[in-house]
Amino acid sequence: MTETVDCRTAAARLRGADKVLILCHKNPDGDTVGSAGALCKALQSLGRTAAVLCSDPIPKMYDYMNIATFDGSFTPAFVVAVDVASIQLFGEKNNVQDYAAHVQLCIDHHSSNSGYAYETLVDGTASATCELLVELLDELAVPITPEIAACLYTGIATDTGCFRFTNTTAATHRAAAALIEAGADVESLNERLFECRSHARMAAERMALESLEFYYEDRCALICLTWDQIQAAGVAGAELEDLTSLPRSIEGVEVGLTLRQQKDGSYKISVRTGHNTNACSIARRLGGGGHSRAAGCEISGNLDNAKHAILDEVKKELDRSASLQAAESET
Amino acid sequence: MTETVDCRTAAARLRGADKVLILCHKNPDGDTVGSAGALCKALQSLGRTAAVLCSDPIPKMYDYMNIATFDGSFTPAFVVAVDVASIQLFGEKNNVQDYAAHVQLCIDHHSSNSGYAYETLVDGTASATCELLVELLDELAVPITPEIAACLYTGIATDTGCFRFTNTTAATHRAAAALIEAGADVESLNERLFECRSHARMAAERMALESLEFYYEDRCALICLTWDQIQAAGVAGAELEDLTSLPRSIEGVEVGLTLRQQKDGSYKISVRTGHNTNACSIARRLGGGGHSRAAGCEISGNLDNAKHAILDEVKKELDRSASLQAAESET
Repeated sequence: MTETVDCRTAAARLRGADKVLILCHKNPDGDTVGSAGALCKALQSLGRTAAVLCSDPIPKMYDYMNIATFDGSFTPAFVVAVDVASIQLFGEKNNVQDYAAHVQLCIDHHSSNSGYAYETLVDGTASATCELLVELLDELAVPITPEIAACLYTGIATDTGCFRFTNTTAATHRAAAALIEAGADVESLNERLFECRSHARMAAERMALESLEFYYEDRCALICLTWDQIQAAGVAGAELEDLTSLPRSIEGVEVGLTLRQQKDGSYKISVRTGHNTNACSIARRLGGGGHSRAAGCEISGNLDNAKHAILDEVKKELDRSASLQAAESET
Repeated sequence: MTETVDCRTAAARLRGADKVLILCHKNPDGDTVGSAGALCKALQSLGRTAAVLCSDPIPKMYDYMNIATFDGSFTPAFVVAVDVASIQLFGEKNNVQDYAAHVQLCIDHHSSNSGYAYETLVDGTASATCELLVELLDELAVPITPEIAACLYTGIATDTGCFRFTNTTAATHRAAAALIEAGADVESLNERLFECRSHARMAAERMALESLEFYYEDRCALICLTWDQIQAAGVAGAELEDLTSLPRSIEGVEVGLTLRQQKDGSYKISVRTGHNTNACSIARRLGGGGHSRAAGCEISGNLDNAKHAILDEVKKELDRSASLQAAESET
């Protein structure tokens, strides 16, 4: 069982440490990379040796953070994990598993953190681990340089969808204000992180909108991309992923479906739902799974079959939700 | 010529006023509506009679602000304009022109404000007029209720693209933090403002993407909506406004243009630029104006003429920027 520690204790541990290895979670996002980059630079500014290790490559879009990745040139004496909620999330590559079982300190904002580290600094009210690090670096008395500010802003901005998601609090905005004053170039960061859509993405969006269909009195919206269309647009998996939020974002739509044909002809279906229906229930009945508002499944066969199968399940879920609401309004 | 006043003087004027008519700009957006709503509620909380007048209807998406619109039930004794940079922007409908020439106080964040009011409170560093109003209401010693906070948050969030645009500063984030603490329900506000796209908006986006053209080695992207298309999609001015950021958001695009045909056949052109070109320079040469990265103008004549005229100016600006960069790299 882990020991829960506060910022002050965590700062004391870091001050006493050297040869620090900082671990990110697999499929690294802006928060785990930004946290690792900021902490690494902060420790280096205190004269410590530090480097970052991740199971997967750091995405190129985060190149501007200049992350010092671990190259084996020192033997880690202290292992810190940032933004990693459970041991499974470390991944298997890059020898990460050599260190994953011996994490001295975990810094995280997931209240679901499983407590795998010896000591854990966790704040479930922080929008991002980077928000928590603003406080920790203050405790460490490390001046926030423009480079550190850029790392921390990245984590906060990406985890909050640029201050749009429900995890955004007054404290989040105050942290952002402090980072801007510390020299984070938000103009270029926001442009990099949020404003640049590739030509391929625009082409995919156009195709998606052209294929947009509505069902069940417009409570369900569906977009569909065939394998040929995806190839013609030259869009990669990660970019396509963003399209899946589109159908649900339309006014009055409770269930949004995105059907993407795979190379073998089968359809990968993303299900996004509003407050009143359960995406996982829909996907699970077709052999898939996921969260209550975002889930997925795969259906083989032609487009008509795939559409028919998923729309049937959507109908059942909409009916279930309608009768539930009717029952509630009666009581 | 107008007298420039500070927050303190503006607050004194408002404290001394009653029967206050608050004017918005035509095609009202979140900032002019939010400013008017917040100021109106603030004055009412001080026991003053106040109401809001706009040439165009307040868009339905802002219904939650419960704007008290002017119904002629009092004779205005003090006229305030909020977020209106020049007298042309008042519009012609709803008898707005009866008051537009007699504005006692203008509160605005456009540094280009033409100075049409007797007194002007202007802060070009404020992201939104609503950001300036946070300071003004503090000076007025009006407690920010959750309703006022929702109005002010709306203006700041919409004018900054939810803290994404370059006008976002540390002060902007601090204002947002204060409004969240004052009870602005950012979860529902962000969902309303940024996550819900109307059917009409989707139709407009689809049309926009279908009309997308690139010029000058893809450094300029242009979308065009004809009057008939806009009518067929049933999209209002404010919703269309959002589309103007689309062309510039594409990878490698330095100048984004959105051409919208007006009822009289003329074209309203929105110009959005990157770091290296000046939107206002482009628009100004065609009789328009605006900010350095967002500006606009109107061109009469057919589409070919309008395109030709604006693309010529874009070319000049791109060439000027290229020669400037070449000169810089030589030194």
